[in-house]
Amino acid sequence: MESLAIIGMVSIITAGLTIAVGCIGPALGEGRAVAQALSAIAQQPDEAATITRTLFVGLAMIESTAIYCFVVSMILIFANPFWDHVVAAAGG
Amino acid sequence: MESLAIIGMVSIITAGLTIAVGCIGPALGEGRAVAQALSAIAQQPDEAATITRTLFVGLAMIESTAIYCFVVSMILIFANPFWDHVVAAAGG
Amino acid sequence: MESLAIIGMVSIITAGLTIAVGCIGPALGEGRAVAQALSAIAQQPDEAATITRTLFVGLAMIESTAIYCFVVSMILIFANPFWDHVVAAAGG
Amino acid sequence: MESLAIIGMVSIITAGLTIAVGCIGPALGEGRAVAQALSAIAQQPDEAATITRTLFVGLAMIESTAIYCFVVSMILIFANPFWDHVVAAAGG
Amino acid sequence: MESLAIIGMVSIITAGLTIAVGCIGPALGEGRAVAQALSAIAQQPDEAATITRTLFVGLAMIESTAIYCFVVSMILIFANPFWDHVVAAAGG
Amino acid sequence: MESLAIIGMVSIITAGLTIAVGCIGPALGEGRAVAQALSAIAQQPDEAATITRTLFVGLAMIESTAIYCFVVSMILIFANPFWDHVVAAAGG
Amino acid sequence: MESLAIIGMVSIITAGLTIAVGCIGPALGEGRAVAQALSAIAQQPDEAATITRTLFVGLAMIESTAIYCFVVSMILIFANPFWDHVVAAAGG
Amino acid sequence: MESLAIIGMVSIITAGLTIAVGCIGPALGEGRAVAQALSAIAQQPDEAATITRTLFVGLAMIESTAIYCFVVSMILIFANPFWDHVVAAAGG
Amino acid sequence: MESLAIIGMVSIITAGLTIAVGCIGPALGEGRAVAQALSAIAQQPDEAATITRTLFVGLAMIESTAIYCFVVSMILIFANPFWDHVVAAAGG
Amino acid sequence: MESLAIIGMVSIITAGLTIAVGCIGPALGEGRAVAQALSAIAQQPDEAATITRTLFVGLAMIESTAIYCFVVSMILIFANPFWDHVVAAAGG
Amino acid sequence: MESLAIIGMVSIITAGLTIAVGCIGPALGEGRAVAQALSAIAQQPDEAATITRTLFVGLAMIESTAIYCFVVSMILIFANPFWDHVVAAAGG
Amino acid sequence: MESLAIIGMVSIITAGLTIAVGCIGPALGEGRAVAQALSAIAQQPDEAATITRTLFVGLAMIESTAIYCFVVSMILIFANPFWDHVVAAAGG
Amino acid sequence: MESLAIIGMVSIITAGLTIAVGCIGPALGEGRAVAQALSAIAQQPDEAATITRTLFVGLAMIESTAIYCFVVSMILIFANPFWDHVVAAAGG
Amino acid sequence: MESLAIIGMVSIITAGLTIAVGCIGPALGEGRAVAQALSAIAQQPDEAATITRTLFVGLAMIESTAIYCFVVSMILIFANPFWDHVVAAAGG
Repeated sequence: MESLAIIGMVSIITAGLTIAVGCIGPALGEGRAVAQALSAIAQQPDEAATITRTLFVGLAMIESTAIYCFVVSMILIFANPFWDHVVAAAGG
Repeated sequence: MESLAIIGMVSIITAGLTIAVGCIGPALGEGRAVAQALSAIAQQPDEAATITRTLFVGLAMIESTAIYCFVVSMILIFANPFWDHVVAAAGG
Repeated sequence: MESLAIIGMVSIITAGLTIAVGCIGPALGEGRAVAQALSAIAQQPDEAATITRTLFVGLAMIESTAIYCFVVSMILIFANPFWDHVVAAAGG
Repeated sequence: MESLAIIGMVSIITAGLTIAVGCIGPALGEGRAVAQALSAIAQQPDEAATITRTLFVGLAMIESTAIYCFVVSMILIFANPFWDHVVAAAGG
Repeated sequence: MESLAIIGMVSIITAGLTIAVGCIGPALGEGRAVAQALSAIAQQPDEAATITRTLFVGLAMIESTAIYCFVVSMILIFANPFWDHVVAAAGG
Repeated sequence: MESLAIIGMVSIITAGLTIAVGCIGPALGEGRAVAQALSAIAQQPDEAATITRTLFVGLAMIESTAIYCFVVSMILIFANPFWDHVVAAAGG
Repeated sequence: MESLAIIGMVSIITAGLTIAVGCIGPALGEGRAVAQALSAIAQQPDEAATITRTLFVGLAMIESTAIYCFVVSMILIFANPFWDHVVAAAGG
Repeated sequence: MESLAIIGMVSIITAGLTIAVGCIGPALGEGRAVAQALSAIAQQPDEAATITRTLFVGLAMIESTAIYCFVVSMILIFANPFWDHVVAAAGG
Repeated sequence: MESLAIIGMVSIITAGLTIAVGCIGPALGEGRAVAQALSAIAQQPDEAATITRTLFVGLAMIESTAIYCFVVSMILIFANPFWDHVVAAAGG
Repeated sequence: MESLAIIGMVSIITAGLTIAVGCIGPALGEGRAVAQALSAIAQQPDEAATITRTLFVGLAMIESTAIYCFVVSMILIFANPFWDHVVAAAGG
Repeated sequence: MESLAIIGMVSIITAGLTIAVGCIGPALGEGRAVAQALSAIAQQPDEAATITRTLFVGLAMIESTAIYCFVVSMILIFANPFWDHVVAAAGG
Repeated sequence: MESLAIIGMVSIITAGLTIAVGCIGPALGEGRAVAQALSAIAQQPDEAATITRTLFVGLAMIESTAIYCFVVSMILIFANPFWDHVVAAAGG
Repeated sequence: MESLAIIGMVSIITAGLTIAVGCIGPALGEGRAVAQALSAIAQQPDEAATITRTLFVGLAMIESTAIYCFVVSMILIFANPFWDHVVAAAGG
Repeated sequence: MESLAIIGMVSIITAGLTIAVGCIGPALGEGRAVAQALSAIAQQPDEAATITRTLFVGLAMIESTAIYCFVVSMILIFANPFWDHVVAAAGG
């Protein structure tokens, strides 16, 4: 049953670290973009609509990198092919 | 019972580290966005409503990355499929 | 009794590190927001009410990430399902 | 008696590191807020009362994260459930 | 079955770390580009169309580095030639 | 006598590191606050009294985080419950 | 079969790390270049064509370093001479 | 005599590291405060007395954190209760 | 066959790390140069030809350091004298 | 004679590291203070006497932290109570 | 044959790391120099010849440090006296 | 003779690291002071004498921390009491 | 023959790291000096001769530290007294 | 002959690291001083003689810290008292 424990252990660690480390970049990047958007609105209120629209497209793009990490993290917890294989092997 | 201890150990460590590391980015990003919002309000008080609204949408977006980490952390503590499996295996 | 010691050990370490590491980001982020709020009040005293209100909402949002960490830390000390399981197993 | 030594050892280390690491962020954040408050008073002496009041609310909020760490540190030294359990087990 | 466990273990760790580490750069780079775009629109609203177009081409270019990482991560989970080989060897 | 050595060893290391690491933040934060106070006095000599008073309250607040660390450090050296327990156990 | 496992293991780790680490630099560099391009267009709209052309040449040059890493990563996964040799040796 | 060597060893290491690490923060903080004081005197020579007085109070406050570290370092070398105990135990 | 595995292992790791680490510097340096070139063109459009020419010479110079790394990486994978020697020794 | 070697070894390492690490902070802090003093003299030559006097008091204060480290380092080499004890024990 | 493997292993690792680490500095330094050259040409087009000439001399000087690293790297791969000695010893 | 080797080994390592690490701070600090001195002379040529004199006193103060490290390093190589003791013990 | 392998191994590693690490500082320092020289020429073209001359003296001084590292690296590869001794001992 | 190998090994490593690490600080410090000197000459050409003279004295002072490291490095390679002792002991 040792393989089972090893695969389970690294799946847990990796799932956590992936989303934890992967959130640092997007959070900082989004913070910067939002901050600049607010500054731009204050400077040019008439362009608020264009600025907000561009901001949301940009945020979606940045958020996508966080979502890649979340997807990999969820796959490792709930749809992990390596775990399925060792469970099947252990149960077979 | 060794597998049980290993899986439990890494679940605890990972749950804690995930939320701890995953909070650094959002907290800094939100701090930056809030700081800039206050500066923008001081500069253009008439646009306070637009600025506040954009700020809250942005904060929700940034907070979402922290919530991903919190969700993974809670799953690892209270709904951990790897732990359930080894407990079942140990009890079976 | 070895599993008991391992689970207890990592619970203590993780509880401490989670709150310690998890406080760095919020503290710095809040410091930045408060500093900018004071600067904004000095620049636009007439908007002090709006600025203070926005500041408090923002601080609550940032503080929430610290509270996530505190919650996880308290769960690991006082309501740890892994510890409960190994204690029950050791006592059973 | 080995479990006792391990639990005691990690309790001491964690108690110290929690408060030590957990103080870096709040101290820097408060330093920044105080510095900006002094700058704001110098710039707008008439608003000194509003600035000071906002500063103290903000400092209390930042200090709260340091207090979370202090609380966890004290719990680990004087009200540690894991230590109580292993002492009871060793003495039982 | 030891080779199987080793290959599985490093595949999981690497898949997670690749996407986690690989997202930091693109997220920060995109955050910077979006922030500057908003600032440019506020400064020169008449050029919003040119700016937005150039921004999207640039974001696609930056995103491509994140996608390289995502591709490698997915290959390591779902189309890993090393894993296929050791599974075949173990099953043969 | 091995438990005794381990508990003593980590108490010494932790006591030292706690105060050493815990002093970095407060010292830098206080340095920043003092520096800004001097700059504010030079800029607005008439407000020297208000500035100095606010500075001292702020310094006391920042110093408090250093004092938390000093308290934990002294407890670990002179009133360590874990050490008392293992000494009593060794002498019993 | 131990050589096989070692070679496979390091191939996976290296393939992932190469593309992950190798993307940080290009992503940040491209982000900087794009950001400056947008700023330049806002400042001198009449030169948008020249600026965009120079930008794309520069981005291609920066992207090339990311592609070097992607190439090495793909070689290590799909055309690894060391792996081929140990597989042949193990099968021979 | 092994306990004696371990306790002595960590006392020496901790005494040195405590004062070494604990001096970095105060030295940098004091450097910043002194630098700003000189700048303030150059800017507002008439307030030199107030500035110098505030500087010295601030330096004393910052120096206090260095002195905490020096005190702990001296206690560990010359009045170490853990060392006294193991020496007494070894001699008893 | 152990020498073979060791040499193969370090060749793979080194080939990957060399190109990954070696790309960080050139990518950042080129990003800076391109960004400044765009800024210079916007500032002095009449000198676009001279600026572009100097930029390309500079980029080639910076790229050369990335190419050194790529060359070493390729040598380690496809023309590695140490690997050739141990393969010959193992086959001899 | 093993205790003797361990105590001697850590005394040497700690003596060196204490003064090496402990010099970084003071050297940087003094560099900053001296640099600012020169700038202040250039800006306000008439106050050169006051500036120089304040500078020397400040430098003495910063140097004091370096001297704490030098004192501890010398104690560990030439008046080390732990070494004296193990030498006496070994010779007794 | 163990010496052979060790010498080969460290030769490969060192050759790769030497050029990888050694390229970071020159690439960043050249990037800075080129960027400033472009800015200088934009500011003073009449001096383009002098600026370009000085730039190329400077680039050659900076490149020389990268070439030192490349030379050492090539020596370690193709003219390594330590490898030659152990090969001769193994073959003798 | 093992004690002899250990003491010799750590003396060499510590002597080298002490001077190497201890030179970073002074070199950077002196570089900053010299740079500012040149800037001050350019700004206020009439005060060149005062500036140069203050600079040299400051440089001497900063250099003193480098000299502390050099002294400790020389003591560890040529007048090491721990080495003398183990040599005497080995020869006795 | 083990001593031979150890001495050879550390000679290779140290030779490579010495030149690799030792090039970072000079390359960055020279990059800064060259960049500032170009900026100075653009600002004061009439002083180009003096600036270039001072630049070259400065570059030679900075390069000298890189050359110290290159010399040590070459000594370790081609004139290593420790290697000569163990080769002589092994051959004797 | 093991002591001989250990002493030789650490002498080589330390000699290389001492000069490599010890060159970073001086190179950066000198780069800063030279850069500022060029800027000062461009700003105040009439004071070029004074500036150059002060620069050279400063460079000599900064270079001195690099020379301390070079001296220690050479002593460790060619006049190492620890090596001489173990060689004599091994030959005796």
